[in-house]
Amino acid sequence: MANLPPTHSPLFLGVDGGGTKCRAVLVDSNNTVLGVGEGGPANPYHGVERTYESIMNATDIALRNAGLTPKHKANIVAGLGLAGVHLPSLFQIVNQWDHPFKAQYLTTDLHIACIGAHESDDGAVMVAGTGSCGFSYVNGQAVTLGAHGFPCGDKGSGAWLGLSAIQAVLIAEDELGPSTMLSDLVEEQLQARGLMIVDRLSGAKSSDYAKLAPLVFHAAEQGDSVALNIVKDGADYLSRVANKLWATKPPRMSLIGGVAQRMLDWMDADIAARMSAPLSQPEFGAVRFAKTKHAAKPQEIAS
Amino acid sequence: MANLPPTHSPLFLGVDGGGTKCRAVLVDSNNTVLGVGEGGPANPYHGVERTYESIMNATDIALRNAGLTPKHKANIVAGLGLAGVHLPSLFQIVNQWDHPFKAQYLTTDLHIACIGAHESDDGAVMVAGTGSCGFSYVNGQAVTLGAHGFPCGDKGSGAWLGLSAIQAVLIAEDELGPSTMLSDLVEEQLQARGLMIVDRLSGAKSSDYAKLAPLVFHAAEQGDSVALNIVKDGADYLSRVANKLWATKPPRMSLIGGVAQRMLDWMDADIAARMSAPLSQPEFGAVRFAKTKHAAKPQEIAS
Repeated sequence: MANLPPTHSPLFLGVDGGGTKCRAVLVDSNNTVLGVGEGGPANPYHGVERTYESIMNATDIALRNAGLTPKHKANIVAGLGLAGVHLPSLFQIVNQWDHPFKAQYLTTDLHIACIGAHESDDGAVMVAGTGSCGFSYVNGQAVTLGAHGFPCGDKGSGAWLGLSAIQAVLIAEDELGPSTMLSDLVEEQLQARGLMIVDRLSGAKSSDYAKLAPLVFHAAEQGDSVALNIVKDGADYLSRVANKLWATKPPRMSLIGGVAQRMLDWMDADIAARMSAPLSQPEFGAVRFAKTKHAAKPQEIAS
Repeated sequence: MANLPPTHSPLFLGVDGGGTKCRAVLVDSNNTVLGVGEGGPANPYHGVERTYESIMNATDIALRNAGLTPKHKANIVAGLGLAGVHLPSLFQIVNQWDHPFKAQYLTTDLHIACIGAHESDDGAVMVAGTGSCGFSYVNGQAVTLGAHGFPCGDKGSGAWLGLSAIQAVLIAEDELGPSTMLSDLVEEQLQARGLMIVDRLSGAKSSDYAKLAPLVFHAAEQGDSVALNIVKDGADYLSRVANKLWATKPPRMSLIGGVAQRMLDWMDADIAARMSAPLSQPEFGAVRFAKTKHAAKPQEIAS
């Protein structure tokens, strides 16, 4: 890329880390994108060392992509938004990471998604993807709802929709509950019926259950009462999350994630109408978070 | 022990294998108990090699306990009732085990529990322990209900009660559902509240959730409406399982497992009244199973 910054210029890195992958974006002080990179899983709940490795991989790729070298890391002010660090124990560990950057500012993936979605410190965001949760940040006050993970929480999420479908199908096949077209749909997707479904899902992760979510929407749209009950139950929960987030008076709210659009069809109409499209991606929210935090910090005198 | 059988006498071994441990009982042709032994986990769903090792350990202990040596294995007709082998793929694998016995007869843990409970080939049994399921065997016809495992199935079980409690507590603490005294009870037992519960239950197994089941019964008995709904929902499912098993016309039915007695209090009164106490333990059912199968098999001519 042209007009590369000199090696002493400040660089800002935004990292969005989740259970499947992490994305990094490298910008200069004018917010010009210099490079981007992608790494492996970066949810410290599933491995702290792996998280560091994934962040480093994504950073090195972003630096190469920008035509810079690893020695530029010492100029980088990094903003990390990671899944899992809403748990205090994990926040503490990652916050004490012996990182190679000039400075590191850590927060949750939800927080940077919120900043990115609104290009503002204040706002609210709901996630309905593999998991589900809600977050608002208003006047320095953060509120997190859900984010309890699978199988304890994540109601209304893709994984929850898939697990609920499997539970209903197994009960229906025992003729201990209402029959449902989900039985045929699940059989077609998993190539398994009855007990063989259990065999097939041995060791399944939340992302495996989430792959079944489209079947539940399809069956609900066809009027299948079992699927309708599942989708309405999930949508009702997400509507309650949205109402609780609106009560904190955020200027805007966005719904993001893989099943967000389809769940919105089943949520209260007034809630759906008030949702705003995200303005930018979470990794840009991480950049903004890092810049704000760094500006607020007492600066060293430049040498 | 006195009056040991000579090394060429037939011996019968009954093994009850589950996810936590396996029990073995060694008897002679007159059903006199010669020795007993216990081994580690023997559910091939969680490891086939481990299952064989646990069965061998339990057998060796039973032989030693009987004052016999490992060479007596060649005289043993073994009946194995194992969790997990209701899945056809696992049944096939374990049935082809290169075992050291004179003969091996394999069936499910449910089947031997049923034979043991009734000291008869025909009967029905329901399990409400860490997991839940139902089984009947009448005139050569077996019916299995549930046995779907956690978290897809096992409604009304200890693990299901515990997970349901955690889900309700997390939603209550977000103020997105009714408050419940389960919040205080769970906090006391796990020494954790809100998100820290998620931290505490990281990697929890079904048996860990089952440890929370007594809290649900306690809260339900105190009239807590959230706990009442959970217990009644589980008991209603178990009542439906019982009715479906009675429809197969078994001569007797027993309810076994760690939460069986407490769930019975919440099931339909007529169902509870019709349950019979188990007559003997599953490993004795396994002995009876082996003897019946072996007697029905064309015998080699004794050398």
